Amino acid sequence: MKIKLLLALLSLSFAGAASAQLKPEDAIKIRQSGYGFMAWNMGRIKMNVEGGQYNKEEVVKAANAIQAIANSGMGALYVPGSDKGKGWEDTRVKAELFTNKEGVGKVAGAFVKEANEMAKVAATGDAAAAKEQFGKLGASCKGCHDDFKVKK
Amino acid sequence: MKIKLLLALLSLSFAGAASAQLKPEDAIKIRQSGYGFMAWNMGRIKMNVEGGQYNKEEVVKAANAIQAIANSGMGALYVPGSDKGKGWEDTRVKAELFTNKEGVGKVAGAFVKEANEMAKVAATGDAAAAKEQFGKLGASCKGCHDDFKVKK
Repeated sequence: MKIKLLLALLSLSFAGAASAQLKPEDAIKIRQSGYGFMAWNMGRIKMNVEGGQYNKEEVVKAANAIQAIANSGMGALYVPGSDKGKGWEDTRVKAELFTNKEGVGKVAGAFVKEANEMAKVAATGDAAAAKEQFGKLGASCKGCHDDFKVKK
Repeated sequence: MKIKLLLALLSLSFAGAASAQLKPEDAIKIRQSGYGFMAWNMGRIKMNVEGGQYNKEEVVKAANAIQAIANSGMGALYVPGSDKGKGWEDTRVKAELFTNKEGVGKVAGAFVKEANEMAKVAATGDAAAAKEQFGKLGASCKGCHDDFKVKK
């Protein structure tokens, strides 16, 4: 899919990203990719803050990836028609995400704030502070999942 | 998969990321997620540098995401046994990626260098420079695909 998707995107002749309307299935795939990649990096931080060994470089790399993805503007991926359907797998987004703008803004803002703080704390190399911030970041992920993601 | 994977990762009791051996299918999924998310962001930059309108913020967000993913240490995702198999879809990695360390190091290093430069150029807001750097970055993606990815 990656190359096909890239070629599809590259062949768009619209001027400016705002005009680029992704197909729902592609938008869902990209969302799932972003969250999946962040999940891997959450796991890496978790292993470092809860394991016996703290590797500053590992945590920095993982935190930077989460921060950049969190700030990338994934909101644009919730295109009309992507409330249902299959990307890599069936989307589990709730319909409320498309209607409760205030609620979404609140949880999304909290997530971005904690992701930015995680990257900042990681850069200091302070393992105890990283562990504390990792807890806050995880809670901000859960805040959105609780309200806007169907449980398995 | 995301939550299952996260839970799986979170339940690991190993001390330090180096000990964490991902299952090949999960490693492939995460690779595909990382590349897929970067492809979306390449498409966003492309639309801005080739369209009539240049949105600095869009390009910065996209370039930062690519940079952070490029620097995240995806090499760790090429675990033994992940030369074949299915993540989100069948992997198209060539066997050579697991044997030609020098060649992989060269193309990976070139990609990271161009991704870092893309983020730097994006921050200046210079559309012409961003267009030029986008060409170099795309070429560095292709450099790896040519050697280490099976064509569709």
